[in-house]
Amino acid sequence: MSEVLVTVERGQLVESLHRGDIAIVSANGDVVSSVGDIEKVVFARSSMKPLQTIPIIETGAADHYHFDDGDLALACASHNGEKQHTERAASILSRLDLEVANLQCGTHPPRRQEAYEELIKSGGDVTPIHNNCSGKHSGMLATAKHMNETVDDYYKIEHPVQQRILSVISELTDVPVDDIQIGIDGCGVPVHGVPLRNLALGFARMADPSGLKESRQQSIRRVTDAMMNAPEMVGGTSRFCTDFMKHMNGKMFGKVGAEGVYCVGVPKAGIGIAVKIEDGNARATNAVIMEILSQMDLINEQEAEALESYHRPTLLNARKEKVGMLKPVFSIYQKA
Amino acid sequence: MSEVLVTVERGQLVESLHRGDIAIVSANGDVVSSVGDIEKVVFARSSMKPLQTIPIIETGAADHYHFDDGDLALACASHNGEKQHTERAASILSRLDLEVANLQCGTHPPRRQEAYEELIKSGGDVTPIHNNCSGKHSGMLATAKHMNETVDDYYKIEHPVQQRILSVISELTDVPVDDIQIGIDGCGVPVHGVPLRNLALGFARMADPSGLKESRQQSIRRVTDAMMNAPEMVGGTSRFCTDFMKHMNGKMFGKVGAEGVYCVGVPKAGIGIAVKIEDGNARATNAVIMEILSQMDLINEQEAEALESYHRPTLLNARKEKVGMLKPVFSIYQKA
Repeated sequence: MSEVLVTVERGQLVESLHRGDIAIVSANGDVVSSVGDIEKVVFARSSMKPLQTIPIIETGAADHYHFDDGDLALACASHNGEKQHTERAASILSRLDLEVANLQCGTHPPRRQEAYEELIKSGGDVTPIHNNCSGKHSGMLATAKHMNETVDDYYKIEHPVQQRILSVISELTDVPVDDIQIGIDGCGVPVHGVPLRNLALGFARMADPSGLKESRQQSIRRVTDAMMNAPEMVGGTSRFCTDFMKHMNGKMFGKVGAEGVYCVGVPKAGIGIAVKIEDGNARATNAVIMEILSQMDLINEQEAEALESYHRPTLLNARKEKVGMLKPVFSIYQKA
Repeated sequence: MSEVLVTVERGQLVESLHRGDIAIVSANGDVVSSVGDIEKVVFARSSMKPLQTIPIIETGAADHYHFDDGDLALACASHNGEKQHTERAASILSRLDLEVANLQCGTHPPRRQEAYEELIKSGGDVTPIHNNCSGKHSGMLATAKHMNETVDDYYKIEHPVQQRILSVISELTDVPVDDIQIGIDGCGVPVHGVPLRNLALGFARMADPSGLKESRQQSIRRVTDAMMNAPEMVGGTSRFCTDFMKHMNGKMFGKVGAEGVYCVGVPKAGIGIAVKIEDGNARATNAVIMEILSQMDLINEQEAEALESYHRPTLLNARKEKVGMLKPVFSIYQKA
């Protein structure tokens, strides 16, 4: 069963709490540590995007369409819909000779409020390019176009774009294709359900691909280097993914997924970390990741200080007064 | 311990779930039914607003400043920041000879996206009047002004405005003033922590005040009638509080509180219902309330149909496709 990972305190009271599960796995599949139930099947949601980016490289689409680190990082992104993101997505689409209308991800307002306000003030419309997944969809279109496949239905599970992704996920997580649970994501494409342990294994292999075939090693390193070299593309201003990778400065990569998922790969330690908050609330994930890295001594004082507001977030009210805080309360070294 | 109340399903998988506690109590204090731990102390947050509105009437401020049902309902509100709400709050302030600057609630964008967009497009600024609590704060100012008290510090726990509120809450929930836990709300005023059972008792007495002194009975009925007569003021367009009271048409009243709290009073049955979602997620509360009322047979077919989307909410993606649903999974008649 999921364990209490984070308490939400207001005044002297624990007002709410978040349960969840943690899997820490090495690239050879060993479970380094765990909290809760790591065999629970979870939809990885957007935390799977780094794995989903691999086919862009392996089909040759990335080279053909001149994807740089920023483009690959945007394909891994759940971005803020800031200009830096939408302009890059537009640039990818124009290289493909496609348009915003080809994105099948649907629309939602830019995640960052300032970007949303700016758009409205300028008289602009919210379009699929503002969808936090527009980079991923642009990348999917790149592979479809490059492989001479249809571009209208790339989001369907039976399309070669999705089948290539499914193969990569199966290979990296050690879950047979037929055992991967499929749902539909917020942006219309398939989401992949695997045991939390296997999700962590996937990130461990992204962190240390040395046991994989040479070409796969290269494509994986190109993806994770891109994320760590262009972290501003993976999230955006004031987002954990971005600030985390900026401050960790090449030491590790991380990616959020909806419904309280977060995954990290630590190349030097050769491990992958996967976290799922039982109730799906994203507010607890950053604190959990920071606490795990702190307990494992994988983060130095300077990094810890720079990321403190993510580790023990304070709750501010509309008057900007501190009224509470989130507090990680688990130990990865103490079994239930 | 909290029990699983609602599952969040995507495809064939339970992706997330929400645990929580339910107290159903009659006006004489009997526990009619319960799920989970009803002795748990919870911050009632904004679900306490109907009780907090009583002093506006009992000080004479409501009559002096010509509060109608809409004004009293707005004092009970966590509103959308629509024009109907901000204009009414402005009207109350002008009757008090006060200004928006006197509201000490801080600012946040209007809750309703369309209201926010409209404001930005019109070149307007977000001010404290758009804060979902601006009605409550206007009501607090009304009592301070009417009682010739200071208006600059009405939000502090030691101010007579807050002390009167504390007394009413203590009397209605049967929790001694000194045992009420105090925290600070999102809008800067005190929040009140009482056992869930006592919160339900407070709503039971709001639903059936017949055991209380005559003047208190009258002030309570004036508050709850106002909520049921002007439900559009309590929340706004597409909000559960509003749609629920509209469709229940005088049969019951309900009020949301932050961090997954919801309370209902059912006058005919003489009961109060209080729900707390352990993880604080508001998305689960409506489904829980609808399920309780359905299990208790307090809702007819027509009402159930009108409120079905709150009872079993579907999850839509950005393409407007149904990708999942929330499902209540508890029974109030089966003890753990």
